[in-house]
Amino acid sequence: MTETLVIALGGNALQRAGMPADADSQLKVVRETAAQLLAILKAGWRLAVVHGNGPQVGRIALQNEAARKITPPMPFDVCGAMSQGMIGYHIQQALGEEMERAGLPGRPVTLVTQVRVDVNDPAFLHPTKPIGPFYSREEAESIAREKGFVFREDAGRGWRRVVPSPMPLEVVELNQVRTLLDAGFVPVTAGGGGIPVVYEAGRGYVGVEAVIDKDLAAWRVAEGLDASTLLILTEVENACLNYGKPNQKVLTRVPAAAMRAYLNEGHFAAGSMGPKVDAALRFVEGMTGRRAIITRLDLALQGLSGERGTEIVAS
Amino acid sequence: MTETLVIALGGNALQRAGMPADADSQLKVVRETAAQLLAILKAGWRLAVVHGNGPQVGRIALQNEAARKITPPMPFDVCGAMSQGMIGYHIQQALGEEMERAGLPGRPVTLVTQVRVDVNDPAFLHPTKPIGPFYSREEAESIAREKGFVFREDAGRGWRRVVPSPMPLEVVELNQVRTLLDAGFVPVTAGGGGIPVVYEAGRGYVGVEAVIDKDLAAWRVAEGLDASTLLILTEVENACLNYGKPNQKVLTRVPAAAMRAYLNEGHFAAGSMGPKVDAALRFVEGMTGRRAIITRLDLALQGLSGERGTEIVAS
Repeated sequence: MTETLVIALGGNALQRAGMPADADSQLKVVRETAAQLLAILKAGWRLAVVHGNGPQVGRIALQNEAARKITPPMPFDVCGAMSQGMIGYHIQQALGEEMERAGLPGRPVTLVTQVRVDVNDPAFLHPTKPIGPFYSREEAESIAREKGFVFREDAGRGWRRVVPSPMPLEVVELNQVRTLLDAGFVPVTAGGGGIPVVYEAGRGYVGVEAVIDKDLAAWRVAEGLDASTLLILTEVENACLNYGKPNQKVLTRVPAAAMRAYLNEGHFAAGSMGPKVDAALRFVEGMTGRRAIITRLDLALQGLSGERGTEIVAS
Repeated sequence: MTETLVIALGGNALQRAGMPADADSQLKVVRETAAQLLAILKAGWRLAVVHGNGPQVGRIALQNEAARKITPPMPFDVCGAMSQGMIGYHIQQALGEEMERAGLPGRPVTLVTQVRVDVNDPAFLHPTKPIGPFYSREEAESIAREKGFVFREDAGRGWRRVVPSPMPLEVVELNQVRTLLDAGFVPVTAGGGGIPVVYEAGRGYVGVEAVIDKDLAAWRVAEGLDASTLLILTEVENACLNYGKPNQKVLTRVPAAAMRAYLNEGHFAAGSMGPKVDAALRFVEGMTGRRAIITRLDLALQGLSGERGTEIVAS
């Protein structure tokens, strides 16, 4: 088999609620994730890995703020680049270790990856994605005046900066990712959805303070690599209709047209299952031979074989 | 020309004394550096870039410490990975911009890079490299008890953690770097000397808390890529005999055997010109056709043509 698979790893693939946020604990969780990835590599897939960075980049932003009187805080695009280095290193360590034990060649490698967005994306007018620490109202107002940041009150816990979440248009380093994949390596790319950049003619790519949804970034990676399969790993086994209600219906294998209708009917929560289904649909719609699977991390291999999870196929 | 060049960028290529340590100032300095790199690419060289990370990883360690009561500080290998992401992103932005303007293909890309060291390297018994913030004697003793870190009093400014600086043996992701170079891209690799790891049979590479000299790491990259030329960029134009004394002699073109003798005679300061000359010699000694150049960043292209700087050639 030489089919290409792009995996989007959710937050629970990188750290676990209730465990400390130190490096040893993170590496332990990433090792469990790496064991799942190894099983997929052993099954013969060509693999590229995309991962989230929400809690990690939040802590980096928090560390930047905590030290702001002694060293200038980095803007959010730079914090994202730092999180790619940190998480990518742990994936290289853990998956490299698994591949070493199994005698598999083609070690993983992380690429610092920029993802282009449109400067005219309407998301820039409506920042929605909370990042970094909580502030008092006074602190938030002071930072807002100084830096022009936008803050929102967050469920009684304080004020939090919000940034736009624009659509990913293009993986800037896609050719480098493809080169490594074709040479038999496992690229780790577009971590945290990629560092968001806009393109300015005659200048090139310029960083912006935003967050790209990592599942949508994984769709762009999968499309760019001409992958056959996009596997979105999360904390639940299936997408469901009427989720959490008495008439809940588990979705197993769904044609894209039907799934699009369910999405439009509001069956999938915004900021949770919604963007996953959206990314899956964008990858599959109108393309024969492509499929997207949403399932739980520990069911990854069974998801690929159609035994578990929700599979979205071309209509 | 299809000769391969490895450039080691010193601290002044990434930030400048007297300028703020914020992202805009750093990016401004990196842009000036990128203009030098562009001139080299235009001259036809195949280029891989290695860079230092001293001040940057120091600030990351400092931010980690400042927030230690709210989120666990990352160990030093992880801070190094974060600095690779941060600095590599800025190099990608700045050099990408220059290449875009000049219409050059083959954009730069940063690889999170591990460098193997020997667990039995004697450096592990004698930590020498100061990192991170200054502490009072009491704080230092408390952290030393808790974590086993080693501290040294630093010139009356307080106590500072010291870590070992072992010899680099191997660039773990070398094949990935070579793959990208062969495909026409500009890899940015082994930032800050690489993330130091040791190899454990049946397990693979495991991170250690140490700092690898970035010029020595650049030697390993150059050797691994079979480069013809290693260019070490720093703040002075030349290596000198009797540096700073009335009988100072500027070195221009020196056979390796003579340079080795000068190094052994103690002409080059430890922790400054010494390791640069050492890295240059290790690259050139016993190899016909190789040369190493040490010069100032703004003289890079003239250094390559032999007009400026100190060139070390095979004896």
